[in-house]
Amino acid sequence: MADRSAIFPADEFRGRIARIQDQMHTRGVDGLLLTTAADIFYTTGFLTRFWDSPARPWYVVVPASGDPVAVIPSIGGELMAETWIGDIRSWDAPDPRDDGISLLAETVAGLVPGNGRIGVPMGPETHLRAPLSDYETLRARLSPMAFVDATACIQRVREIKSEAEILKIREACRIAGRAFDRVTDFASCGRGFDAVMRDFQMALIGEGADWVSYVAGGIGPDGYGSVISPPGPVPLRRGDVFMLDAGAVRDGYYCDFDRNYAVGSVSSVIGRAHAGLWQATEDMLTLLRPGMLAREVHALFGEAMRKAGVVPSGWRLGHGLGIALTEWPSFSAVDETPLRAGMVLTLEPGCVTEADRILLHEEVIVLRAEGAELLSPRTPVTLPQVAA
Amino acid sequence: MADRSAIFPADEFRGRIARIQDQMHTRGVDGLLLTTAADIFYTTGFLTRFWDSPARPWYVVVPASGDPVAVIPSIGGELMAETWIGDIRSWDAPDPRDDGISLLAETVAGLVPGNGRIGVPMGPETHLRAPLSDYETLRARLSPMAFVDATACIQRVREIKSEAEILKIREACRIAGRAFDRVTDFASCGRGFDAVMRDFQMALIGEGADWVSYVAGGIGPDGYGSVISPPGPVPLRRGDVFMLDAGAVRDGYYCDFDRNYAVGSVSSVIGRAHAGLWQATEDMLTLLRPGMLAREVHALFGEAMRKAGVVPSGWRLGHGLGIALTEWPSFSAVDETPLRAGMVLTLEPGCVTEADRILLHEEVIVLRAEGAELLSPRTPVTLPQVAA
Repeated sequence: MADRSAIFPADEFRGRIARIQDQMHTRGVDGLLLTTAADIFYTTGFLTRFWDSPARPWYVVVPASGDPVAVIPSIGGELMAETWIGDIRSWDAPDPRDDGISLLAETVAGLVPGNGRIGVPMGPETHLRAPLSDYETLRARLSPMAFVDATACIQRVREIKSEAEILKIREACRIAGRAFDRVTDFASCGRGFDAVMRDFQMALIGEGADWVSYVAGGIGPDGYGSVISPPGPVPLRRGDVFMLDAGAVRDGYYCDFDRNYAVGSVSSVIGRAHAGLWQATEDMLTLLRPGMLAREVHALFGEAMRKAGVVPSGWRLGHGLGIALTEWPSFSAVDETPLRAGMVLTLEPGCVTEADRILLHEEVIVLRAEGAELLSPRTPVTLPQVAA
Repeated sequence: MADRSAIFPADEFRGRIARIQDQMHTRGVDGLLLTTAADIFYTTGFLTRFWDSPARPWYVVVPASGDPVAVIPSIGGELMAETWIGDIRSWDAPDPRDDGISLLAETVAGLVPGNGRIGVPMGPETHLRAPLSDYETLRARLSPMAFVDATACIQRVREIKSEAEILKIREACRIAGRAFDRVTDFASCGRGFDAVMRDFQMALIGEGADWVSYVAGGIGPDGYGSVISPPGPVPLRRGDVFMLDAGAVRDGYYCDFDRNYAVGSVSSVIGRAHAGLWQATEDMLTLLRPGMLAREVHALFGEAMRKAGVVPSGWRLGHGLGIALTEWPSFSAVDETPLRAGMVLTLEPGCVTEADRILLHEEVIVLRAEGAELLSPRTPVTLPQVAA
């Protein structure tokens, strides 16, 4: 599949590694150990759905200077060899006797001084995608090296998207936009919500998604409760509002936005909620600027919603987006992250419609020096209706 | 979506918890901490694609006796409330100040004696889906409790499927079988392999998959190299063989098997390889019995392949399957796991066709006391051809 190896030219990755190494230098990290699909795709271009198999750990080591080294199961060797990575070390996995830990320890020892500091992302929105016992073995083997939190080394870099990345996210958003436009073709009163969700996933793929990594939905007469549920076979009923949320992937990059539809007529409760969320989002599209803190955006968004006559629901009102469905920061009351130009973010206001029911909107933007630029096609000011 | 909450009756989950608690008792584990999508679905029935968002950790604690307790972000509260779990404790996440760790520590402290042993899956094919720094905080908060490896407590239970689970996997296999039958409708000479993969994913969903969690493919004139790659836009050429591999999900359960197709005529190399893999699999379907070790199956499979005139490739020749695309054991030379009745397994022989090229087969079986029972529709003895 050599055709897919050039999602980006090697210079894109070299730039990323240089920025990560700047962060490592600033923070006193002598080697960075990465284990997740997102971090490994970001640094190498290695793109596969095989991460869905939890059988094998995968490692990339970024030294303080020079190119990263991949330490991976042999089953991934050919695919990794199509990326810009030149130094690929493989073992046959899974191997319960030693699942790459000796090879990894040897690799790190060759790249980092004996008294050096190994950075591992350990903070919010990270996890170690490798067995804990292997991690403890690695620490023991590499003693007296120190293992330190390096969340910032990767998050401060990944959160600023290059123009090449922004193009990919825009394309994923366009694909989803076309799929959302087709919902009125296949959704109608009486149809099961699960059947609508199947058609929607097929529409996403048909419009160009490489795969559909996330969909969810909500349905009810005056809003919905859970927004992360798989759809049941409940039929669409006249007067319902339903929401479809799409995390479609193209070239490894996600969109993440939702759209709402009324079955037949729109209730006055939903009509007012939709108009309020639309207007509050419009206000935020004008107000957003680099330098604001994420929690300041949350406060402004809340004000804009109340001004537009709707009551905010939920803990956060948007988040980062890119090579994962959700990235940092969060537009919540407690997130101190400063916004910077180049961030791709969702605006995701939810409002209370009645007890335990909400309506949720979502758009994707890239933050420029002069403000927000939409990447998702703007949701219609009037709620679209499907046949009743 | 209350309609989807009853994938299984509560007794299915009560049986699982009783079996896990038996293991905990045997191994001296006083409380089991689970963090992954598979382990949490297995114990609670909580099913969502929202795991695709890495923003929030989720926890389930299984005490030595009594029902599990869910400690989860509030966004999942409504969906978890539809499961059999009665004790659900929530916090607003993500919260960089304390992402549920105080609530989790308090929950564990209320369920496990102060000098108790907390089990966490730390071994092969596991990972902790939560930030490492939060885990360290939890350990410090719960000191002097010991944190011990509890991989066996969950793996020895999950690896034996109930009849209800086997039905789900059989259904996922049937769905994929119908999608594979349609490949000759949309694949033909000149069509891009990426377009074929899109059509295949749509066919899987159209035939009843809730979602497509994994697909991969390989293509080439006398076999393929990588079997975990996304497809490129390379057109199908007369004389190519191509492989599609499907991990489709229905009610949270996976199938995992592949099928091969010839574009027009089948080369003699591929014809012989296909016949050899078919026969070796046929032999294994007859030979498999509970009590064999996974490595003994690997040895027998290798013998059957050589007898059938093909040279084995790759590290393992099959694996477990269920609520993840791949589960333990591995049919490799180093896996000592004894086979037991109720295991769902793949038979996945690959053989060398020419330098760096292979052909790969795969079937899904459930192991019964009397031997293997196929869950996937058997691959045709003659390689299917698409129009050239």
